[in-house]
Amino acid sequence: MAASKLAVGVLGASGYTGAELLRLLGQHDGLRVEALTGDRMAGKEIAEVFPHLAPQKLPRLVKIEDVDFATLDIVFCCLPHGTTQEVLRDLPHNVKIVDLSADFRLYDPKAYQQVYGHPHKAIELQREAVYGLTEHYREKVKSTRLVANPGCYTTTSELPLIPLLAEELIERDPIVIDAKSGVSGAGRSVRENLLFTEIADSFAAYGVGNHRHAPEIDQCLGDFAGGTVKVSFTPHLVPMVRGIFATTYVRMKQGVLVQDLQERLEEAYQDEPFVHVLPMRSLPATKQVRGSNHCLIAVHPDRIEGRAILLSVSDNLIKGASGQALQNMNVMVGLPETAGLTIGPLFP
Amino acid sequence: MAASKLAVGVLGASGYTGAELLRLLGQHDGLRVEALTGDRMAGKEIAEVFPHLAPQKLPRLVKIEDVDFATLDIVFCCLPHGTTQEVLRDLPHNVKIVDLSADFRLYDPKAYQQVYGHPHKAIELQREAVYGLTEHYREKVKSTRLVANPGCYTTTSELPLIPLLAEELIERDPIVIDAKSGVSGAGRSVRENLLFTEIADSFAAYGVGNHRHAPEIDQCLGDFAGGTVKVSFTPHLVPMVRGIFATTYVRMKQGVLVQDLQERLEEAYQDEPFVHVLPMRSLPATKQVRGSNHCLIAVHPDRIEGRAILLSVSDNLIKGASGQALQNMNVMVGLPETAGLTIGPLFP
Amino acid sequence: MAASKLAVGVLGASGYTGAELLRLLGQHDGLRVEALTGDRMAGKEIAEVFPHLAPQKLPRLVKIEDVDFATLDIVFCCLPHGTTQEVLRDLPHNVKIVDLSADFRLYDPKAYQQVYGHPHKAIELQREAVYGLTEHYREKVKSTRLVANPGCYTTTSELPLIPLLAEELIERDPIVIDAKSGVSGAGRSVRENLLFTEIADSFAAYGVGNHRHAPEIDQCLGDFAGGTVKVSFTPHLVPMVRGIFATTYVRMKQGVLVQDLQERLEEAYQDEPFVHVLPMRSLPATKQVRGSNHCLIAVHPDRIEGRAILLSVSDNLIKGASGQALQNMNVMVGLPETAGLTIGPLFP
Amino acid sequence: MAASKLAVGVLGASGYTGAELLRLLGQHDGLRVEALTGDRMAGKEIAEVFPHLAPQKLPRLVKIEDVDFATLDIVFCCLPHGTTQEVLRDLPHNVKIVDLSADFRLYDPKAYQQVYGHPHKAIELQREAVYGLTEHYREKVKSTRLVANPGCYTTTSELPLIPLLAEELIERDPIVIDAKSGVSGAGRSVRENLLFTEIADSFAAYGVGNHRHAPEIDQCLGDFAGGTVKVSFTPHLVPMVRGIFATTYVRMKQGVLVQDLQERLEEAYQDEPFVHVLPMRSLPATKQVRGSNHCLIAVHPDRIEGRAILLSVSDNLIKGASGQALQNMNVMVGLPETAGLTIGPLFP
Repeated sequence: MAASKLAVGVLGASGYTGAELLRLLGQHDGLRVEALTGDRMAGKEIAEVFPHLAPQKLPRLVKIEDVDFATLDIVFCCLPHGTTQEVLRDLPHNVKIVDLSADFRLYDPKAYQQVYGHPHKAIELQREAVYGLTEHYREKVKSTRLVANPGCYTTTSELPLIPLLAEELIERDPIVIDAKSGVSGAGRSVRENLLFTEIADSFAAYGVGNHRHAPEIDQCLGDFAGGTVKVSFTPHLVPMVRGIFATTYVRMKQGVLVQDLQERLEEAYQDEPFVHVLPMRSLPATKQVRGSNHCLIAVHPDRIEGRAILLSVSDNLIKGASGQALQNMNVMVGLPETAGLTIGPLFP
Repeated sequence: MAASKLAVGVLGASGYTGAELLRLLGQHDGLRVEALTGDRMAGKEIAEVFPHLAPQKLPRLVKIEDVDFATLDIVFCCLPHGTTQEVLRDLPHNVKIVDLSADFRLYDPKAYQQVYGHPHKAIELQREAVYGLTEHYREKVKSTRLVANPGCYTTTSELPLIPLLAEELIERDPIVIDAKSGVSGAGRSVRENLLFTEIADSFAAYGVGNHRHAPEIDQCLGDFAGGTVKVSFTPHLVPMVRGIFATTYVRMKQGVLVQDLQERLEEAYQDEPFVHVLPMRSLPATKQVRGSNHCLIAVHPDRIEGRAILLSVSDNLIKGASGQALQNMNVMVGLPETAGLTIGPLFP
Repeated sequence: MAASKLAVGVLGASGYTGAELLRLLGQHDGLRVEALTGDRMAGKEIAEVFPHLAPQKLPRLVKIEDVDFATLDIVFCCLPHGTTQEVLRDLPHNVKIVDLSADFRLYDPKAYQQVYGHPHKAIELQREAVYGLTEHYREKVKSTRLVANPGCYTTTSELPLIPLLAEELIERDPIVIDAKSGVSGAGRSVRENLLFTEIADSFAAYGVGNHRHAPEIDQCLGDFAGGTVKVSFTPHLVPMVRGIFATTYVRMKQGVLVQDLQERLEEAYQDEPFVHVLPMRSLPATKQVRGSNHCLIAVHPDRIEGRAILLSVSDNLIKGASGQALQNMNVMVGLPETAGLTIGPLFP
Repeated sequence: MAASKLAVGVLGASGYTGAELLRLLGQHDGLRVEALTGDRMAGKEIAEVFPHLAPQKLPRLVKIEDVDFATLDIVFCCLPHGTTQEVLRDLPHNVKIVDLSADFRLYDPKAYQQVYGHPHKAIELQREAVYGLTEHYREKVKSTRLVANPGCYTTTSELPLIPLLAEELIERDPIVIDAKSGVSGAGRSVRENLLFTEIADSFAAYGVGNHRHAPEIDQCLGDFAGGTVKVSFTPHLVPMVRGIFATTYVRMKQGVLVQDLQERLEEAYQDEPFVHVLPMRSLPATKQVRGSNHCLIAVHPDRIEGRAILLSVSDNLIKGASGQALQNMNVMVGLPETAGLTIGPLFP
């Protein structure tokens, strides 16, 4: 019954993560979209911004200041980092929030300032925030009113590593994460280097040695590793629209076998609906998860004894953004965790 | 309740249309998949053939002769043309069938023989077959046990033309259909000219002047046009995976205005869940329907007076194949026509 | 000997046609690049704008006003239309110019004003301009000081039609040109609809019924057809970087056979180094000419008697822009027409 | 003068490396193509196999046994590994050979047998073979009659590492090479996993932990490192046609700075026409070298002290195959090393 559905607002609905969230909400029986914001687009129908959403019945885009937050149960925030802090700081306390930006992911305001170059503007709210890698922070997610939804690189990198670090099967150093992303990870930014002509039939790295998400990975892994972790992390841009692929090189602790890694991961994720550990030496492709909330993990022995290679894939806009946001919200409001997220991958 | 679900078999589940059907069936509450066949793949799990389907619980692939058709209510046939006739001819009468091949689309066995180069092997069954362009043959689909599901080129070409020919707003000649298809239209055939290296960053025509689907278009349009129709039809291969785009050049009858075409189409499809007539001069893109069962139509005046240009787009594997097949089956068994087909387009 | 090389300036070298011209000039023994302009980029090395050109030794980008035109023999102008007129109007008379913009292509200033929405600002110069479809205006190109280089759509559309209209083998109406272009045809413009995420795995039309190049095609065909021509012309955007493909639907004159079209075209182009008529019913692909100055043409019978389909392909940045510009310049200064243009297509 | 040109045979001209070699030879003044073989294609014109080569005048494809090797000065061998040994073993001694297969790259027949699973069939010839990473084995290449041309992964991986290992600026372990290749690296093999539909918009690893080229890298690096080297090496498939990208993670020796690596590389390659060391922290893209024989190298500090990240790119079919083969042949026969290789990259 519509009356019992929770009322949802999406702030920053005119970007790709906003659009993807709306697609998923279109499959969700327990939530109804009540408010959409898009500052530069305020006043427009969503179909003018995203023609593919025309068949869904959705409210017109408005400015944030025109949203009546008292009528909302839930807010997904897809605003740019920086802006986000100021907006969320002032929201009424009854509203549950999943924030897809980077603003509330780092626990330590000093770390935030170092990475983002300015002081955090909502330090109190940051203290309430729970890091939303659902599979590993589920209990905390249940009881918070603000989830800091992890990024796509971090989700895909952390899922294979956490269980291995938590059980001390691998060394905390070196960990080399060589990550590759589809172009939608850059959002709908209109920049020369994101033109079709520049990207197609090409491959490049970026943010080498200084990508902003590396400290987030360190922090999350440190939560489980029994000590600090600092990873090598290199992101690359793949001429594809969606998908994240992480190739992670690890060194096993003395006496640990690759088979032990495999078993630990299988056990850790055996009851998870969205994280799947493939048989040893499998070769997952990003297209096997495109359009779905799944993450696939495969373990390989390295050719050098004592080392292993972990492969993990997900859809950067879903498990790496809007899908995990919805998964977290389901947990926060007590709905089935898979609600709205049962769509299978689009292949080919 | 599972017990009340209809039992489905998919013949030829190891191709792209089979896989897409299984994805859609995963979202359908009223049907359960009981049997999957794949001759060369018999004995394999579907996940070995299509890893992206691993998260769905599906039966193992078997040979057709090992299917107990008595237990099935419904069969989707995704076999190659030719083979199809022989298989379907022998199926028990209680089973309702949607055939995705070209085998039962042409009414006239002579026409079939001319196009396909051999006599039709199931002429009696062909007489029962109903052409499944759902929006225009819905009443016949309701009462048949065999639907010949139209192809992707034909669906996308016919939808904008039928209402205009039926109301005699355009001439029956010339009609020039310049059609462009994603590569998945060729199926999973392992051929040199379908390699990534050959297709990427390239564009070409094929089947110029003699494509097998042109007679199907003529026949269908003739059903509504009040006279025979023979179209110019040129298919092209686009370096994309999914999508059909038809650019159709028509000549209006004396005194007819482009606005009249627009109004006629809007009226014809106003209550249809899957066919959407966009505002005049709109520019639909295939990606706006990718992953969905939608077809978008736009009307444009030509720069030459008295002529108009029709644009129409759909996803070749959905409205052009498996989606329309499911839509037809919903109609045949009395389920809501949109069941399993509410997933929105995957964009970007 | 370097001393005998002609001095070249490239105005607007920071766009794709400028870059492509520089690549070709790198293979030309008789010309040396002396000046490069790029207004917003003035002061930069070309390698900052186009890293792939770093290995070539090229002058730094300057502003147009800082070019000493007295030292130049030749100018290629790759500026946007509108700006071009004002710049070229004031160039010294000794300089030979090939202009790649649309500014000097239309003979009639009124036609120009109608298409581009403002009066032409260099009407006297326009009278001197020669339309540079080299194969058909070669004699005029030899003796002019200003060539208006044709666009990519027009070159590819006109080459198969001119010999057939000139010999009255086909009707002047209807002529339907359904054209498809790679994305580089839009230049390096930073626009949302040209982002990789928007273009990839999608196909769409644009400028339907009112593209600015259609009057140019009419004018050029009219030069040969013995009467006015008005074509239907629809451009489309293909998810590829380079290439133009034209599918042209024509009606033959009474008694003319498709074989006659084939023979006429073979005869017309038999001695041309860059235009190749393939055997009847061939299927050229854009990738077969990518990176080269070639244009391939194929003739097909339509399935409707009395009609034929012409296919033609070229690289939009080469035969459709910079390659033909260099070809024209070779003709203007009396160098071998193929100088700098012998590089074969890059395949795959 | 044609009479003074050296006579070239290309064995296995019907694959992508063969075709690319022919494109390059079309720009070479000192060589003329006299014989082309293609076993399954014998009797065909090259234009039937590669339409883009039609404008070049080239001999018809024949079987190897029909080649008169006495008339040839030079042979490029593009045959599959295994076959190659048997063919080259029997060639007359006057012919100079560049072999593009893996057959003669490993010095040690035992290592060959271990990697390729069968004994080497031309052990004597293997002793004569020189590994053809031109920049580092140039003197040996000059005086041999058989060059074993390195593969694309290995060339791109080895070029940044050799000078650093030779000067003992980095540790010999760990060296992690995370490599990414365009699809043309797999040749023109007709395999399901190389179809456009499977590759497009997807990314995956393959050969993880056991790729056949890793021992070749070990051997080559060992030639310079003053000790054995064993690298971690993971190849990936990028949805692009051409290009190799290597991201290499190294640990610096005590007291060495990233700036030292930069200087060493700049010095090592300052006079090389095809290897370019970019300014520190540059971000090369594969498209910046596509279509050319260039390799670009960039040095980055890792975020972990004492470690560095090396980026290197090349075109897998040129510097990674046919271009380097021609470069080696130029050295072998005393022609300018850059002959036929001056074509700039095709961008965009």
